[in-house]
Amino acid sequence: MNTLLIKGCHILTMVEKERPWVGDILIADGRIAKLAPVIEASASTVLPAKDMVAMPGLVNAHNHASMSLLRAFSDDLKLMDWLDKKMLPAEARMTPEDVYWGTMLGIAEMIASGTTAFADMYVHMDAVAEAVRDSGIRASLTRGLIFLQDDGGRRMTEALDLIDKWSGAADGRITTMLGPHAPYTCPPQPLKEVVDLARSRRIPLHIHLAETREEVEKIREKYDQTPTEYLQELGTFHENHVLLAHAVHLSLEDIGRLRGMRGGVAHNPVSNLKLGCGIAPVAELLAQGVTVGLGTDGAGSATTLDMFAEIKAASWMQKLHYGDPTVLPAEQVLRMATIESARLLGIDHEVGTLATGKRADLILLDLKKPHLAPLHDLHSLVAYSATGADVDTTIVNGEVLMRDRKLQTISWEDVYRQATERAKRLVAGL
Amino acid sequence: MNTLLIKGCHILTMVEKERPWVGDILIADGRIAKLAPVIEASASTVLPAKDMVAMPGLVNAHNHASMSLLRAFSDDLKLMDWLDKKMLPAEARMTPEDVYWGTMLGIAEMIASGTTAFADMYVHMDAVAEAVRDSGIRASLTRGLIFLQDDGGRRMTEALDLIDKWSGAADGRITTMLGPHAPYTCPPQPLKEVVDLARSRRIPLHIHLAETREEVEKIREKYDQTPTEYLQELGTFHENHVLLAHAVHLSLEDIGRLRGMRGGVAHNPVSNLKLGCGIAPVAELLAQGVTVGLGTDGAGSATTLDMFAEIKAASWMQKLHYGDPTVLPAEQVLRMATIESARLLGIDHEVGTLATGKRADLILLDLKKPHLAPLHDLHSLVAYSATGADVDTTIVNGEVLMRDRKLQTISWEDVYRQATERAKRLVAGL
Repeated sequence: MNTLLIKGCHILTMVEKERPWVGDILIADGRIAKLAPVIEASASTVLPAKDMVAMPGLVNAHNHASMSLLRAFSDDLKLMDWLDKKMLPAEARMTPEDVYWGTMLGIAEMIASGTTAFADMYVHMDAVAEAVRDSGIRASLTRGLIFLQDDGGRRMTEALDLIDKWSGAADGRITTMLGPHAPYTCPPQPLKEVVDLARSRRIPLHIHLAETREEVEKIREKYDQTPTEYLQELGTFHENHVLLAHAVHLSLEDIGRLRGMRGGVAHNPVSNLKLGCGIAPVAELLAQGVTVGLGTDGAGSATTLDMFAEIKAASWMQKLHYGDPTVLPAEQVLRMATIESARLLGIDHEVGTLATGKRADLILLDLKKPHLAPLHDLHSLVAYSATGADVDTTIVNGEVLMRDRKLQTISWEDVYRQATERAKRLVAGL
Repeated sequence: MNTLLIKGCHILTMVEKERPWVGDILIADGRIAKLAPVIEASASTVLPAKDMVAMPGLVNAHNHASMSLLRAFSDDLKLMDWLDKKMLPAEARMTPEDVYWGTMLGIAEMIASGTTAFADMYVHMDAVAEAVRDSGIRASLTRGLIFLQDDGGRRMTEALDLIDKWSGAADGRITTMLGPHAPYTCPPQPLKEVVDLARSRRIPLHIHLAETREEVEKIREKYDQTPTEYLQELGTFHENHVLLAHAVHLSLEDIGRLRGMRGGVAHNPVSNLKLGCGIAPVAELLAQGVTVGLGTDGAGSATTLDMFAEIKAASWMQKLHYGDPTVLPAEQVLRMATIESARLLGIDHEVGTLATGKRADLILLDLKKPHLAPLHDLHSLVAYSATGADVDTTIVNGEVLMRDRKLQTISWEDVYRQATERAKRLVAGL
């Protein structure tokens, strides 16, 4: 049996209110076999980790990984110019091979910055699943469903094929959801059909909600409802596990509508800032007991998939909004990026904290750097000063995907060459 | 003569509206001797820099470097708890040796994250100057002046001694300013004396302004003025070059008062976010022709001194404030972190852009990383995706201070040991 013993690191289990401590971690058969101050055991691999921090791998709860091919292609534009003139035409050119390599680029960045699982909504999802399988990362995959034109049921067929073919694949690393895209791209009848199907087949839902003011106005005009009300009236939150991406523009009534829901909100602070969307009511959602995790959204808007940037931005935005530096403190926002995001993906029984018996999805951060010294409060240091570049080692399902910052399962040279060439073709003339 | 030839890099000169191009940079006698697509010259050192970006070193226009010893010591607290219960008592224990090693820790982080010059206001400034001299970085130094109790003129004497002793020292890398701390710590009479002295001796001023709502209320109560009005009425902006730190809470009239001023505003977005202070009116200041640069403030509040975090946060905050992603685009915010900050320090004739004859203060970023591929728009990529950890090489005055991420003039082991031990003593029991 393959065993891995990590020695002498600071341990942030992310179990609520547990203080950091120093100790060893034994991994066997892809799972955390033991956590203790000192573990005397022989192991096939020993990883000395003095002056390192072990913590659960970060879980990116909302992404379109393949859009990494369009990183920094069309920043500083009005949202509709960005979407209509740049993103949509470039995406229309994407082949399954482009999506495979674009996803690989995104996964390479995620592994290199400490993300061990992500939720993805895109097209050509077989290619996305293959990249997840080949790279060793964990993911919850969704075929985006837009019902604005009749496509003869093609998208829905692809969505169900994805679920049938890939749920539980790659040693259980791949899970799936149904992905009606957003209130403004899903009219009531097809949306209700998807929502009902999800309930009857117990498939979780992944949907964008209330990202922009424009969306709120559009839904108000069409249905005289808020986007959240629109989803509720169609029964979306009834029994279903729902991953809501964004949820920036919610009324107080909307927040009440989400109270008690299964699933919760994937907050994407960097994308919301960079596109000028607004500040999501995270503190209010938390006060109502709604689960809030963190995501990056695609690199087409956020530019980077570094979850440490989201951790900082999430805390900063709430502190700014309330004019109060005590709101969303370090430990809480680190939990949002780990166990709370894992809840949104429905994998919190397996990952998201360091605990005996859980899947070994964890990262090691190297503290011996000027911006990470001295050590006063480990939660603060990790939340407010660390970046993805401080991740030394990334482990998923017990497999080492990065060590000493070197990717182990991905050929970076191949990804770099493929991404560079394909990106050029996708944007030519745009 | 020592010469250094950098070959085949992407070049961001940060000269306004100049597009990136690929070429070579020749450095001789501490200055940029030539910039051209190809330079055929022999040099004592040749630096191959394919897939790297050369750009001016970042200029941190407001810092208290020694506070790096208190990084992550007291986050997520109310501003007054943070200050009164944590920062001030710990700072009161600082010896000149503590300040030397604290500043060294800050400088190590700055060099490692691409900052080549900084403006600092603190105490025990001889120790700060020694750290600047020993490390090879560039700095504008200021002894903070608080006039709340009679100190028999001690602070003022120290401030003038600093200026006499250190102005132009270390091959011209050290410049100095006079530092009345803030409107709420400087009553009218002593402040006017400092301001008049600065004018008559042509010494620039460095002062905090309108960081918090509480400050605005306090000054309103005491003088029935805004903090900016208070400074103006005492003649602060008359002929003086003034570096204003923060300037978050300005009325429209206040912005008008700053129009045409010499110097300008050092915007500290991360600190303002993290302490919940508010959003500075950067776009309005720029519209009125006021120079706006970027700073980190001390690591006691900002946690990190990474100017790339400030670049992102500055742009994000303005986009958020206006609900408009076109505000403060990538190129403009990169100029704020380089040439505009250099203007605030009064060193823009020597550094801040890459141009023949200027001092060779520049950095090389390594692009061969997942989050920096593919290359569509270099300004966007550097502003929105790069972090300090992407800096491969840092050069000041032609001297290589970091190469391949290894510090060349600072013993990191010494700094780490000293900072760790001293930090422990400073916070014991707090």
